[in-house]
Amino acid sequence: MEKIVECIPNFSEGRETANIERIAGAFRNKKELKLLDYSADRDHNRMVITAMGSPGAIKEAIIEAVGFALDSIDLNQHQGGHPRIGAADVIPFVPIRGMSNADCVALSKDCAAALADKYDLPIFLYEHSATAPHRRNLADLRKGGFEGLTEKMQDQGWAPDFGPRHPHPTGGASVVGARDPLIAYNVNLNSSRIEIAQAIARKIRHIGGGLRCCKAIGVELKEQGIVQVSTNITDYRKTSIYQVLELVRIEAARYGVSIAGSEIIGLLPLAALVDTTAYYLGIEKLPEQQILERHLME
Amino acid sequence: MEKIVECIPNFSEGRETANIERIAGAFRNKKELKLLDYSADRDHNRMVITAMGSPGAIKEAIIEAVGFALDSIDLNQHQGGHPRIGAADVIPFVPIRGMSNADCVALSKDCAAALADKYDLPIFLYEHSATAPHRRNLADLRKGGFEGLTEKMQDQGWAPDFGPRHPHPTGGASVVGARDPLIAYNVNLNSSRIEIAQAIARKIRHIGGGLRCCKAIGVELKEQGIVQVSTNITDYRKTSIYQVLELVRIEAARYGVSIAGSEIIGLLPLAALVDTTAYYLGIEKLPEQQILERHLME
Repeated sequence: MEKIVECIPNFSEGRETANIERIAGAFRNKKELKLLDYSADRDHNRMVITAMGSPGAIKEAIIEAVGFALDSIDLNQHQGGHPRIGAADVIPFVPIRGMSNADCVALSKDCAAALADKYDLPIFLYEHSATAPHRRNLADLRKGGFEGLTEKMQDQGWAPDFGPRHPHPTGGASVVGARDPLIAYNVNLNSSRIEIAQAIARKIRHIGGGLRCCKAIGVELKEQGIVQVSTNITDYRKTSIYQVLELVRIEAARYGVSIAGSEIIGLLPLAALVDTTAYYLGIEKLPEQQILERHLME
Repeated sequence: MEKIVECIPNFSEGRETANIERIAGAFRNKKELKLLDYSADRDHNRMVITAMGSPGAIKEAIIEAVGFALDSIDLNQHQGGHPRIGAADVIPFVPIRGMSNADCVALSKDCAAALADKYDLPIFLYEHSATAPHRRNLADLRKGGFEGLTEKMQDQGWAPDFGPRHPHPTGGASVVGARDPLIAYNVNLNSSRIEIAQAIARKIRHIGGGLRCCKAIGVELKEQGIVQVSTNITDYRKTSIYQVLELVRIEAARYGVSIAGSEIIGLLPLAALVDTTAYYLGIEKLPEQQILERHLME
């Protein structure tokens, strides 16, 4: 069977259109590769690309895109609402078809080695690719940000997996690895108070006693003058999108704050879409088989 | 390009499992044909099959299924909450791939002629296949029910398009034709008062001043002890599922009645699913391209 992998690289550029297009362009018009989606956010000052293709084509495009990012992004000058340690901040790989998690881990290590070698860039492996349990979680790897990276990398346990033991002068470090599919889901609040978004994030996320498969942070959207609860649903078959939204709504109510809207970054699996619709319509059973397009695929 | 047609025949049998399985079985294990979904409702005393396949395979299966229905259903003994004039009450065809509406009309007439001939069954053509404007609408064709059919068929303007000018003694008449895709969407109410379901149906449907692409009737679900607003959304790109549900909710509120749940009968197009999810999550833009499975289809 043909091997297909999804790659969802995040770059610390959300404002300069020319740079955004150049980085995304590395995934355009390539053989065995499709650029599925990309979106940039001025407030996050960050872009997220979703691409799918053969392992070889993905690797080649990633190397090109990281080169463009290192050319154009200087983290010393970078400000944005979203945590980051690198110009090419995080490069996750998700197996889609014909690949095991182990295949995906191997691909991520192969890419990591190539990137470190070509750009003298320190790389941390995370999630399924992590080389120690304390290095699995992206939030832990990113703690301290680009600004704290030089010092952190000297600590025991925080040497990079590939590349030099110091940050790239303008591009910091990159986090690379195979992970499970997740849904990036953000809920905007009708408030400009970041402490409210942060308090809600702490309450709804797993580590704070909230939903099992939900990670969350508060982010300021300065240009829009509002704040956002930015979440990752790490297993959408367990934790539902509507649970995240409704829990945010419930928490926001204690501050008299309403929901301004929400957004999904990147791809959304059909099962999650069906789950959400069935909930809001009050449908007891809505099997995926009832979706017309499921059958046109066969 | 391969020709694919969808057929969604409705039979007046929702209670006898053996009969239901036999009728649905006409669409099973056939070449160039797939039985996608079937559901039977005891209160409606009706079943709906969704099948897709080549025009030839669909025609053959329909002829077999109508034969089974005429064998086992006697409308003189039939009681149910849903209007009907035939054992094989309505047989709609929807073009899916490689077929025009005209192709679908031709197929419907071909099937209608074969059914009339084989079973001495009167057939009315409807929707795109209708032979006069007053015969387009299913509700008009079905007015008077099986019980009024002998008399109605003698009226000017109500001679069948195929078959004898009198009902089949036990199977009544069938309505056959090519139509646009629609969503069959039913909303259940926490009430046993049929007049409430009927009043809501009249208010939300197009002819009553309601939603442009919504047909609706009130139906009693005696076994469940509740009533239902049973709707057809005839163009889901114009009228949304959530509009139907929320308008039912608004109308029901004036009677102090709440929504018990809802159901979709047959297939649901992805665009309608995306539309509903975007509404309830408050997502401004959710292109179909963001659904993972869209890309796996290519």
